[in-house]
Amino acid sequence: MQSDRNKILIESIKRLLRRDAAHNLRKILDKTHAADLTLVFRAVSQSNRKQLLDLLDDPEKIGAIFSGLDEDTVLDLMEHIAEDDLVAILEEMPSDDAADLISQLSEEKSDLILEKMKQEDSDEVEDLLHYDEDTAGGIMVPEFIAVSEDSTAKQAIESLQKEHLDVEMPFYLYVVDDYGKLVGVSSLRQLVVVHPNKQLKDFMTTEVVSVRTDMDQEEVAKVVARYDILAVPVVDETNKLMGIVTVDDVIDIFRMEATEDILKMAGAGEEFVETKSIMKSTRIRLPWLFASCVGGLMAFLIIGQFEQSLAQLAYLAAFIPVIMGMGGNIGTQSSTIVVRGLATGRIAITDMWAVVLKELSIGAILGIVYGVLIGFFAHVSYGMGALAFSVSLSVLCSMSVAALVGSLVPMFFARVNIDPAVATGPFVTTAIDIISVYFYFKIATTLLGI
Amino acid sequence: MQSDRNKILIESIKRLLRRDAAHNLRKILDKTHAADLTLVFRAVSQSNRKQLLDLLDDPEKIGAIFSGLDEDTVLDLMEHIAEDDLVAILEEMPSDDAADLISQLSEEKSDLILEKMKQEDSDEVEDLLHYDEDTAGGIMVPEFIAVSEDSTAKQAIESLQKEHLDVEMPFYLYVVDDYGKLVGVSSLRQLVVVHPNKQLKDFMTTEVVSVRTDMDQEEVAKVVARYDILAVPVVDETNKLMGIVTVDDVIDIFRMEATEDILKMAGAGEEFVETKSIMKSTRIRLPWLFASCVGGLMAFLIIGQFEQSLAQLAYLAAFIPVIMGMGGNIGTQSSTIVVRGLATGRIAITDMWAVVLKELSIGAILGIVYGVLIGFFAHVSYGMGALAFSVSLSVLCSMSVAALVGSLVPMFFARVNIDPAVATGPFVTTAIDIISVYFYFKIATTLLGI
Repeated sequence: MQSDRNKILIESIKRLLRRDAAHNLRKILDKTHAADLTLVFRAVSQSNRKQLLDLLDDPEKIGAIFSGLDEDTVLDLMEHIAEDDLVAILEEMPSDDAADLISQLSEEKSDLILEKMKQEDSDEVEDLLHYDEDTAGGIMVPEFIAVSEDSTAKQAIESLQKEHLDVEMPFYLYVVDDYGKLVGVSSLRQLVVVHPNKQLKDFMTTEVVSVRTDMDQEEVAKVVARYDILAVPVVDETNKLMGIVTVDDVIDIFRMEATEDILKMAGAGEEFVETKSIMKSTRIRLPWLFASCVGGLMAFLIIGQFEQSLAQLAYLAAFIPVIMGMGGNIGTQSSTIVVRGLATGRIAITDMWAVVLKELSIGAILGIVYGVLIGFFAHVSYGMGALAFSVSLSVLCSMSVAALVGSLVPMFFARVNIDPAVATGPFVTTAIDIISVYFYFKIATTLLGI
Repeated sequence: MQSDRNKILIESIKRLLRRDAAHNLRKILDKTHAADLTLVFRAVSQSNRKQLLDLLDDPEKIGAIFSGLDEDTVLDLMEHIAEDDLVAILEEMPSDDAADLISQLSEEKSDLILEKMKQEDSDEVEDLLHYDEDTAGGIMVPEFIAVSEDSTAKQAIESLQKEHLDVEMPFYLYVVDDYGKLVGVSSLRQLVVVHPNKQLKDFMTTEVVSVRTDMDQEEVAKVVARYDILAVPVVDETNKLMGIVTVDDVIDIFRMEATEDILKMAGAGEEFVETKSIMKSTRIRLPWLFASCVGGLMAFLIIGQFEQSLAQLAYLAAFIPVIMGMGGNIGTQSSTIVVRGLATGRIAITDMWAVVLKELSIGAILGIVYGVLIGFFAHVSYGMGALAFSVSLSVLCSMSVAALVGSLVPMFFARVNIDPAVATGPFVTTAIDIISVYFYFKIATTLLGI
């Protein structure tokens, strides 16, 4: 099994690191695939990573490992590498990844490195630095195969044998006119199948799916996924071909966006914090808890208004957790389903009212089920019909409102172009807490006449 | 913009559907890409889908649309299609998708359809039906390019021109020995670059990444992502090449697994329920709320034990929401970070204690910050030093324990091979609720001497 093999690899390397067996480590590092080494680098401590880095000579391998690690980790490791080695590594990395790293360095250092890099590589990186990191321009690679529409299949194959050797995914041939504008696409497959003297313009596909340099990376990823293509060409506003975004980057984007959504919905920042220091993680997570702090204190103020009633019937307080809990959980269900549905395209923004109505119905049905159950429990415990009925009604109200708010808020935010994930988690929960507590005390004091 | 174009397309089709303009609809359907039509099908009602389906003639296009829709939706649409048309559509679909659908039909109907399908297609589908849907065998396609290790580059290119025309992603050539065992891999790119008379065994790559038919699909996806490959060959236990899993399926797997994780963590089932009926959604969501119901009732019993103290100091109850809320939210942060970290490989199971210790530290720091803040608020409101101190201490305890439990539970579950996502959401929140309430009343009654 793949994963067993990797576990053994990681354990062996950890053992050799403890024994400081440089010679054996070097042997094992040399014969292991960069993708597997990335897993090893993720599994060991930062000081171990530096130890391993000293034993690696191949800048291409180091570049591939860097592409698979967190930016913070890599930036720290880069401090540890001599400038000339660093230049060699960055030259070997895909230009988009290199540009991301260089943009994080001090201006002085990045200028120095760009100067030392081979003209061609540094030009590519500098071009990419102009684009926003999260757009098609920021994630594209400028290495692609472009051929003139007048070339023949034979000429195209010959050019492949001589040039384009550094192209990452040489499967599509983009066809351009004399001004470099994208006019069609062909594939290596088509080239070997057609007659060698046929011109590209006569057999290329003219309906090319392309994206603009300023398109958000998540949109780009969706385009690649929707059309099941391996790379999408990126063009500027004049339709000039600037680069391509390949499917391996698309996978990374989807995984990253899913992580971001999950973290935002849990109110744990946007970036993955576990790899950061304790103080840094704390700083990122602190503000997200503020919403629930404010919400909790508002609930405190509401309950304070019913202090007289509480003094008369102390056990009213005992039902606060179950009412808050039921509302909170169904609200989380609703908002999660809506946020994920919007992200994956299974829910359309235009369906707002249909979705909200459906959630409200589900909330009401579940509210009746659990309201009866919890009311029955209250009746058994205290034998007061009016109290039991108040609790039942409060659970019903709390769960219905929670389903309503939990679905309405993200739908509304999506409509006005605010990221529904970020707006959902702690805010919805907190709003539901406050509403639930208020309903409960209002209903109970009214029905019990206190 | 891509997304604007699609919005216009959807709106036009909806308008034509309302006007029942069959002729115009047929024209627009004919010239629109199947991937775009999938978006349209997602955006309209089921009865509209049937209307559109009647206007589509091309079984390949219908098959492509079906591949992009929810299984439930497609199964319902299939009822609407004449058997012979259905057979034609299934023949055009990738065998793995066709097999998934056929496996959901009644035995009688699936036998009938398999019998009517072309021998070759039905054999492929029947072979796939033997594998578990979530394994490499269940998601592989049996169409791939396999060439003998003794062939020359020229022979390989010639065979590409004659056969393999239905291969989905003709980029890798898998090299097999006389027994069909996988021995190497080459690419179309290599074929056109090497001398035409060179034999494959002399230039193929012998280090082939492959997966076994019984490997879980999530593992398969991780392999493809890790090695940045476009397809991975699937072999049986004797290393015989059985099929390939392509990168477009890998994207779907990652998106689906992320959705599953998100839903499980929110306690909203595993499958996406929004596309199901109200009653079906309710049934799926009902049991997940049971944990928080039981937890809430346990909190009720705990508070009941402190009824005497509550009768003396009614406003003790007013702090229940803020203490529960702070604990619940930091617990959600911790468990989300751990679950997602485990899923993406950024946290290793072996790091259990390091991760838990770190979360505990963060919980304690944030507990002190918010404890002081909320305690200060309590002091301002009631002017009682002992009460304010109790509240502070309770917030600190609740947040520390929540961070501990929130990280420990998923790490522990992952260790004993239970899916951490499913075990995390409602269970962790509920446990934290109970612990928080208990701590608070114990601390407050002790310190206040009531």
